[in-house]
Amino acid sequence: MSISELRRNPITKRWVVIATSRGKRHAESERCPFCPGNEGETEKTILAYPPSPGGEWQARVFPNKFLAFAIEGELEKRKDGIFRSMNGRGAHEVITARAHKTMYELLPHEIANLLFAARERMIDLRKAVDEHGMPKLECIAIFGNEGPAAGASKSHAHWQLIGLPIIPHEWQDEYRNCEEHWDNENECLFCRLTAEERERGTRIIAENEYYLSLCDGTGRFPFETWILPVRHMPLFEHADDRTIAALADMIGDTLARIGKALAYPAFNLYFHDAPMYDRTRDRYYHSHIKIVPRLTQPAGFELGTGFFINPMAPEEAARILRTL
Amino acid sequence: MSISELRRNPITKRWVVIATSRGKRHAESERCPFCPGNEGETEKTILAYPPSPGGEWQARVFPNKFLAFAIEGELEKRKDGIFRSMNGRGAHEVITARAHKTMYELLPHEIANLLFAARERMIDLRKAVDEHGMPKLECIAIFGNEGPAAGASKSHAHWQLIGLPIIPHEWQDEYRNCEEHWDNENECLFCRLTAEERERGTRIIAENEYYLSLCDGTGRFPFETWILPVRHMPLFEHADDRTIAALADMIGDTLARIGKALAYPAFNLYFHDAPMYDRTRDRYYHSHIKIVPRLTQPAGFELGTGFFINPMAPEEAARILRTL
Repeated sequence: MSISELRRNPITKRWVVIATSRGKRHAESERCPFCPGNEGETEKTILAYPPSPGGEWQARVFPNKFLAFAIEGELEKRKDGIFRSMNGRGAHEVITARAHKTMYELLPHEIANLLFAARERMIDLRKAVDEHGMPKLECIAIFGNEGPAAGASKSHAHWQLIGLPIIPHEWQDEYRNCEEHWDNENECLFCRLTAEERERGTRIIAENEYYLSLCDGTGRFPFETWILPVRHMPLFEHADDRTIAALADMIGDTLARIGKALAYPAFNLYFHDAPMYDRTRDRYYHSHIKIVPRLTQPAGFELGTGFFINPMAPEEAARILRTL
Repeated sequence: MSISELRRNPITKRWVVIATSRGKRHAESERCPFCPGNEGETEKTILAYPPSPGGEWQARVFPNKFLAFAIEGELEKRKDGIFRSMNGRGAHEVITARAHKTMYELLPHEIANLLFAARERMIDLRKAVDEHGMPKLECIAIFGNEGPAAGASKSHAHWQLIGLPIIPHEWQDEYRNCEEHWDNENECLFCRLTAEERERGTRIIAENEYYLSLCDGTGRFPFETWILPVRHMPLFEHADDRTIAALADMIGDTLARIGKALAYPAFNLYFHDAPMYDRTRDRYYHSHIKIVPRLTQPAGFELGTGFFINPMAPEEAARILRTL
């Protein structure tokens, strides 16, 4: 078996990654491997941002030590009866901030550095092709976990970037629903949602020139928060420097509100983007970020049905976050 | 707002339940409300099993104190811009064992009593219709949570039954994929899977006359285990008494193996069934149970993509469970 194997369940048609080296992760050692000076304790640097030979990096990108996906080699698709599988070709990188701080403690310019590094990696990974000239990745997922209850193994603020050789089922559903709305209404479904939420008002948290934060009216978890570009933008990598600065401000603002309201809970933050190569979707898909505080535990109902019970009205959550 | 509200996300087309009374749940009190003699501390009994006036119940069913769904009244569907919603009409019941034990400690006949009570409630709830003679429920989800890390709020072994006014997106996907396989191959996809897994052998844990246990080859979590009826059976409620006794044995056997191998971890157990009223699906949908030990925490990647990284090969998990 290579670094990992992707397998598709024939009943659900969902893919999973079986990545056995990831089981060997250990608890945090005393010396933080993500801090400047300890670069030798991680895999080799892919990107030091900003690029200044010998200068101090503000964000650093390197391969995840416990790889679930590796960019090398050919994609080999296999069949095993009704199961389909393929080797885990893709990208799995870590993006660290310079400061040994939690995500809550990062200043807006420190968040911006993570975003600049992420944008550069996305643009660069788009260029990865195999020896037949075919794209190596279908889409890129960027995410960050804060706190053990959110699955984080290190406290030093870091994000991960995973480039996938397939498009996750849930993303495909979003693309399909947005396409249908475009076909019917000739508008981006997210742009429509943004307009409706502004008119409704009750779920808006904050807004700046480029971004809007709101509680998802259908949040699966209490205080599930969306950060949406005000203007249509299919891919995060299209954000220019001013847009990135505004996004960093909005992420910082949202985390400060969530931290104050809920005593700095564990959370997950993740990006959703249009696929990497199918540019027909740019018209109707709208890049966004979600922040999910981990206040409740998904249980048998949620795992068994994919249907979530949220004990907190999003309008009430937004009211609390808005007034802080 | 009624007891709860179902809302559909326009982007994902997934429903969620906003059930604000559920936020008020408290920690376990000293006196267990699920124990015999304390029936007055829960809602009124719906079913005492076995039915013997004045006799001792072995399993008891009553409405969940923190209802996410209530069976009374009309289903009212609403639109709010691009969002759709409806009131939380449905059923939300608790099924308790008599003994103050964890699920790991229940003897097979005690598990059988939970199953007999669940079967009776499913058959009974099928009869629920509104004043226009329309079905009140589209499907029923039965599940049990063991341990706080799996979302359980009480240690006394209990399951929950939730009857839904819609069919969850993930169940619809399963029905559709099974229908497609039926159309193409004229066979039940689960029956095919069972035959393939027997031939493969590497993922089988145990088998009795009526049920088979195996590690899901595409498990999202380490040691994710399937319990499948050996013969085609679309709905759990079709199980006769001997089949239920065999299922109770198989659940007990599986929990004993998981407990021994993993030091009695928190877990979720849930049922998947054909829908309640669409009998065309009986040909190709196959009732089953999943048991998911909660050894890993879904993080940003899993929440953001619905795509899971499993650090344990299912073949290795099955090998461990099989030899215990």
